[in-house]
Amino acid sequence: MAASAHPRKIAVLGTGGGGRAHAAKLLELGHQVVVGTRDSQVTLGRTQPDFMGIEPFGQWLADYPGIELTTFRDAAACADLVINGIDGGHALEVLGGLADQLAGKILIDYAVPYVYNPERAHPWPTPWGVMPALDPVDHDSLGERIQRALPATKVVKAGVTQEQEVVVAPRTVADGDHTLLVAGDDADAKEQVTALLRAYGWTDVLDLGPIVCSRGMEMYAHLHCAIGFAVGGRFGIKVVR
Amino acid sequence: MAASAHPRKIAVLGTGGGGRAHAAKLLELGHQVVVGTRDSQVTLGRTQPDFMGIEPFGQWLADYPGIELTTFRDAAACADLVINGIDGGHALEVLGGLADQLAGKILIDYAVPYVYNPERAHPWPTPWGVMPALDPVDHDSLGERIQRALPATKVVKAGVTQEQEVVVAPRTVADGDHTLLVAGDDADAKEQVTALLRAYGWTDVLDLGPIVCSRGMEMYAHLHCAIGFAVGGRFGIKVVR
Repeated sequence: MAASAHPRKIAVLGTGGGGRAHAAKLLELGHQVVVGTRDSQVTLGRTQPDFMGIEPFGQWLADYPGIELTTFRDAAACADLVINGIDGGHALEVLGGLADQLAGKILIDYAVPYVYNPERAHPWPTPWGVMPALDPVDHDSLGERIQRALPATKVVKAGVTQEQEVVVAPRTVADGDHTLLVAGDDADAKEQVTALLRAYGWTDVLDLGPIVCSRGMEMYAHLHCAIGFAVGGRFGIKVVR
Repeated sequence: MAASAHPRKIAVLGTGGGGRAHAAKLLELGHQVVVGTRDSQVTLGRTQPDFMGIEPFGQWLADYPGIELTTFRDAAACADLVINGIDGGHALEVLGGLADQLAGKILIDYAVPYVYNPERAHPWPTPWGVMPALDPVDHDSLGERIQRALPATKVVKAGVTQEQEVVVAPRTVADGDHTLLVAGDDADAKEQVTALLRAYGWTDVLDLGPIVCSRGMEMYAHLHCAIGFAVGGRFGIKVVR
């Protein structure tokens, strides 16, 4: 694919599967990509797949020369656009400590605040054990909490209702004929994120409104899982109107 | 439209907009339709639109000769298939008292357990005030509670992710090219409900699995509202795969 007409320095915080999908795609689009982690040496020292069976980050990184690995802080500080790839259980703790580095910047957040608490999880078996519960849920959301913790940052909730592998490659499902939802309080930030999503291949990006819409996007996680089990493969949601 | 090849006696419990949509459509399809209410005389005695601006039931009923109005109990007792059109805040209380009348029957439930508690609602203005909260949410669902309260009834959660006006007339949105989700513990009951939904005009009915999937269907309510405000009109959700 041709390099982006407007290359940016983009930080992806987190080294999991979702973050890797974004980092690889952004590199392909010609952006400068830096990945942030808690401790680079610990991350690179891992030699075994994680509990989800994902290959060690160092092995993955070897296939993407040009992607830099550094600390959360340095990654956030050097980039002009930041993607949160930290899982919903830890995102707020990490991001809350980066208020200075993230001030004035756009932060894309797709995290779902899953809680792996067996007492709150229900007994419906899933491929990863039992369906996790959400916290916060209903009366608040992770997206809103992140925005409150980072008042000088423009938080855009986006790509919550798909696997990130589909977010970065929408045309792998129904030739891209489905919908990507975004929400946030800053109109210009949403426009910039929408432009990035169009570069990913999205043709239908629907702006839901303010960051409070994170509630619905995160609470959709249960239905997303149920549909995924029923369909048994990649899928997308199209808002027909 | 031609009368159904297999006319049934179907009860719709509740006299609100959703129940009326089903009752009218079922009558059109040639079924025998009885609507249940708490007190027929009170229901017929209303002469003013309700707080949602819906016309008094008696006025509506005058346009549908053939639809019978009776008590919840008598409606449930006489029908072989029952649709719950009672709002999510009152459904469990009413249905729990009808265990004998509903035993052995299929109960279709599309209710969302909205709680109109200002302390739990959030301050995002909506056409009806503020976004209501859900109870139960996340670790349980109204669909599951109804099934637990009525162990001899086959509860099928269906049509939760659309307005009922769209559920009974799917072709009014994108010529019907969207998806209707069902869930429940009884496979035969889901097949019978799917047949009814196909008579409504649905071509893509997706079975999510057991009644626990009610959680995701009900929790989607927040996203449904957000999409509705963004789109500003009727819409549907298509699961592309």
